[in-house]
Amino acid sequence: MDEQTLESIKEQIRASLESNNTASALALLLDLHPADQAEVFNSFGEDEKDILLPLLDVPSTADLLEEMEDEEVLEAVETLTTERLADVLDEMEPDEAADLLGDLPPAQASEILAQMEDAEEVIPLLGYPDESAGGLMTTAYVALRPHTSAEQAIKFLRQISPENDVPYYLYVIDRARKLTGVVGLRELIVSEPEKLIESIMDPEVITIGVNSDQEEVARVMARYDLAAIPVVDDRQRIVGVITHDDIVDVLEEEATEDIYRLATVTDADLEPESPVVDHLKGRLPWLYLNMLTALFASWVVANFEQVIGQVAILAAFQSVVAGLGGNSASQNVVMIVRSMALGKITVRRIWAVLIRQVWIGFLQGLLVGAVVGTGVYFWRGDPVLAIVLFMAMICNMSIAGIIGTLVPFAITALGKDPALASSVLVTAATDSFGFFVFLSLASLFLPYFIK
Amino acid sequence: MDEQTLESIKEQIRASLESNNTASALALLLDLHPADQAEVFNSFGEDEKDILLPLLDVPSTADLLEEMEDEEVLEAVETLTTERLADVLDEMEPDEAADLLGDLPPAQASEILAQMEDAEEVIPLLGYPDESAGGLMTTAYVALRPHTSAEQAIKFLRQISPENDVPYYLYVIDRARKLTGVVGLRELIVSEPEKLIESIMDPEVITIGVNSDQEEVARVMARYDLAAIPVVDDRQRIVGVITHDDIVDVLEEEATEDIYRLATVTDADLEPESPVVDHLKGRLPWLYLNMLTALFASWVVANFEQVIGQVAILAAFQSVVAGLGGNSASQNVVMIVRSMALGKITVRRIWAVLIRQVWIGFLQGLLVGAVVGTGVYFWRGDPVLAIVLFMAMICNMSIAGIIGTLVPFAITALGKDPALASSVLVTAATDSFGFFVFLSLASLFLPYFIK
Repeated sequence: MDEQTLESIKEQIRASLESNNTASALALLLDLHPADQAEVFNSFGEDEKDILLPLLDVPSTADLLEEMEDEEVLEAVETLTTERLADVLDEMEPDEAADLLGDLPPAQASEILAQMEDAEEVIPLLGYPDESAGGLMTTAYVALRPHTSAEQAIKFLRQISPENDVPYYLYVIDRARKLTGVVGLRELIVSEPEKLIESIMDPEVITIGVNSDQEEVARVMARYDLAAIPVVDDRQRIVGVITHDDIVDVLEEEATEDIYRLATVTDADLEPESPVVDHLKGRLPWLYLNMLTALFASWVVANFEQVIGQVAILAAFQSVVAGLGGNSASQNVVMIVRSMALGKITVRRIWAVLIRQVWIGFLQGLLVGAVVGTGVYFWRGDPVLAIVLFMAMICNMSIAGIIGTLVPFAITALGKDPALASSVLVTAATDSFGFFVFLSLASLFLPYFIK
Repeated sequence: MDEQTLESIKEQIRASLESNNTASALALLLDLHPADQAEVFNSFGEDEKDILLPLLDVPSTADLLEEMEDEEVLEAVETLTTERLADVLDEMEPDEAADLLGDLPPAQASEILAQMEDAEEVIPLLGYPDESAGGLMTTAYVALRPHTSAEQAIKFLRQISPENDVPYYLYVIDRARKLTGVVGLRELIVSEPEKLIESIMDPEVITIGVNSDQEEVARVMARYDLAAIPVVDDRQRIVGVITHDDIVDVLEEEATEDIYRLATVTDADLEPESPVVDHLKGRLPWLYLNMLTALFASWVVANFEQVIGQVAILAAFQSVVAGLGGNSASQNVVMIVRSMALGKITVRRIWAVLIRQVWIGFLQGLLVGAVVGTGVYFWRGDPVLAIVLFMAMICNMSIAGIIGTLVPFAITALGKDPALASSVLVTAATDSFGFFVFLSLASLFLPYFIK
C-alpha cells in the first residue's frame, strides 16, 4: 500500500471517529494489513487511540501490537485491563509476548502470567536478553521424531494445524530433545508417504547457541541464506527457532548503530523526536570528548601564536589543511568499518590496506593541494603561502591515510567496535597534525611571506 | 562454522595443493557449505584458483559461483570454456545466471546462451537492471490454476520435484497469467485433499512491480515480514518471485550506501583494497567540493585578519567553536537521514523536529560552552576570551541544530538522497558561521582582551 492511500485512510478513520461513527472507523482499520494498521494507529493522538483500542477484538489487538515498536506497545496497553491483556498475550507470538512482559513492571507481569492460558510457552523466553538469540526466538515450532513416516508427519501437521507464523521447517529430535536433523515442508510433500523422516531429513543443521548475540545470528542467517535457524542450548537441544523477519530487524538495528556511532551518537534508539534528555545523554559525552581533542588542537595552534601574530592570514588557511585531512580520513574510516561489519576484511589485511590508503592520501593531497595552492596564489598573490599550503596538504592527507586506517584496526584489535570513537579520534589527529604541519612549514618560510 | 575452523581448513587445502594432493583438497572444499566454499576459494591466489575450479563438477561449480560476488565470479569464469560455462549456467539459479551473463561481453554472452539448455528461463531476466525487482527475481517458482484440488497440487509438486531454492509459496494464476492468489505449502498440506486451490488460497497477495527499485522491494518485504514476494508486470501478470535472502543483501547494500554517502564516499562498491583509481574517482569530487566550502570559510576568517593580527590567540580557538558545531550538526544529520531511510519520519514533521533540535543545540552549547569557557579562563587567564567562546558556542550549536535539521529535509524535498552532500554542506555552514560568530564577538570585545 502506498503512502498516499494510507494517508487518505488515516483521514477517513479520523473523520469517522470525529462523527462518532466508530463502526466505520473500525472497519476501515481492520481492512488493512496489521503492519499498516500499526502505522495508522501510531499516527493517532492519545484520545483516538483510547477510543480505537478497546474496539478491537483480542486477535486483532494481538496482531496490531506485534507490529508496533516496544515503547509504543507499552503506551498502548496502559488502557487494557489485566484480564484483557492476558488474553491478548495468549494470542501473540510467544517471543513478542515475552518481549512485552519483560518491559512491564515485574509485579504486573507476574499477575498477567498467572491469568494466561499459554504461559508455559512464554515463561522459558523471559530469561533471555532482548538482543540474544534466546530473545529473538519463538517456541512455536514443530518437532518430529526420526522414526515417524512422511505420511504420519503430514497427518500430525493436519492435526495440530500449526499457525501461520510457524516456520516452513520441521525439526527432528531424539529422546533427549537433541537436534538431529531438519526437514523442509517441500521435501515432506514430495517424499513417498511411507519413507521415514530420518531418511529424508538433512542431518547437517546449521544452528545457533541460545546465548549468541543477535548480530551473530543475523550474520549466520545472511551468510547461509536461511529462512529460519534452530536455537540450541549447550547440549545441542533445540529450544526455539528464529525466522527471517527477525533478522531483517536486526540488520536494520545494527546498521543504525554503526551509522550513529560513526557520527558519535551512541544511543541507537535515539530519534529526531526523542525526549531532549535522551538526546543530551546520548550525544553530550561525545561532544565533551571532542571538546578535549579540540582544545588539544588549540594548544597546538597556541604554540604558533607568535607566527600568527606576524602573518594573521595563516589563521584563515589552517582549517583548510585540517578539514580536508579530516574528510579524507573519515572516508577511510567508513570503508574499513563497513567492510569489517560485513566480514569483507580482517585485521590480517592491515598492511596491504595501509600502504594503499597512504598512497591514495598522498595522491589526494597532491591533486587537491595543487588546486588549493593555485587558487590561493591568485587570491592572495603570495607564492610562499601557496607553496606552504600545497606541501601541508600533501603531508596531512598522507597522515590521514595512516590514521584513518590504523585507528579502526586498533580499536578492533582491542575488541571494541571500530565505529565507536573512530571519527572523534581520527579527526582529532588530522586536525592537530594539520595545524602543526601547516604552521610549522609557515614558521620555516616566515621570512619569505608577503606581510 | 567459526572463523578459526575455516582458517585451519584453508591451510589444509593449501597444503594439499602444494603437495599435489588435489583429491584431498577437493574433498575438504566440497565438505563445506557453498557459502564457506566461496570464502575459502576467494582467499586463494590465482594459481590455486586455476587448479581448483576445473576439479569441481558442474553442480558444485554452480553452487560456488552463486555464493560469490559479481566481480569475483567474472574473474573465476575466465578459465572455463564456453561449453563448460553454459552447463554451469544451466545449473545456476536463473537470476544468478542472468546477472553473470549481463556482466560478460555481449558476444560471449550470446554464444553461451546459444549453448544453454535452459536459456528460455534466463533470457526474460536479461533486460532488467540489476537493482530493480526484475533484476532480483527468479523465474523458478510454481504456478497453479484455481480449480486444481489440493491433492492434485501435491501430486503435481511430486512430479516436478522442485529444487531447493523454489520458495515455499505456490502462486495461483488465471488464464492470462494474472495473479489471483497465493497458497503456502503449509496450508496445502493441512487442507482436505479434495478442496480446490481457490478455496484455500489467500486472494490478497502483496505484489511488487517488475520495475520497482530494489530499495522499495526491501521496504515492502521487511514491512510485511514476507519470505517471498511475487513480481508482476503492469497487467498484474506474475513474471517472477523474489525471496528473503535477496533482500538481506539489498538491506546491507543500502545501509553501506547511506554510511558511505554520509562520509562523502559516493561509490558504494568501494572497498579499502579497491583499485587506487576507483578511490580517486569516488572520493576526489567530494574533496574538491569540500575544498570550495573550506575556502569560503577561509574567506570568512580573512575578513578578520586585522583582529587576529591584534589577538593572535583567537586563531587557536576559532576551530573549537567551528568543530563542535560541526559534530553536533552531524549528530542531527545521521538521525534524520536514518529515520527517513527507515520510514520513521516524514517531511511533515519538519517543524516539530526543528524546534526540538534547536533547543537541544542551545542546551549543548550552554553545557559544553560553559566547560570550554571555564577551562580556557584558567588556561589563558583572560575572562573576555572565555566569555566570547561561551557565547559563540551557544550561537553556533543552536545554528547547528537548524542547519543539521533543514539541510537533510531540504535535500529530501528536492527529491535527492539526504545522505548525499548533507555532511559537506552542513559542516561548511557550521564552520563558516562558527568562525564568523566567534570572530565577530571577538571584534566587539576587542578593547577588553588581555593582549
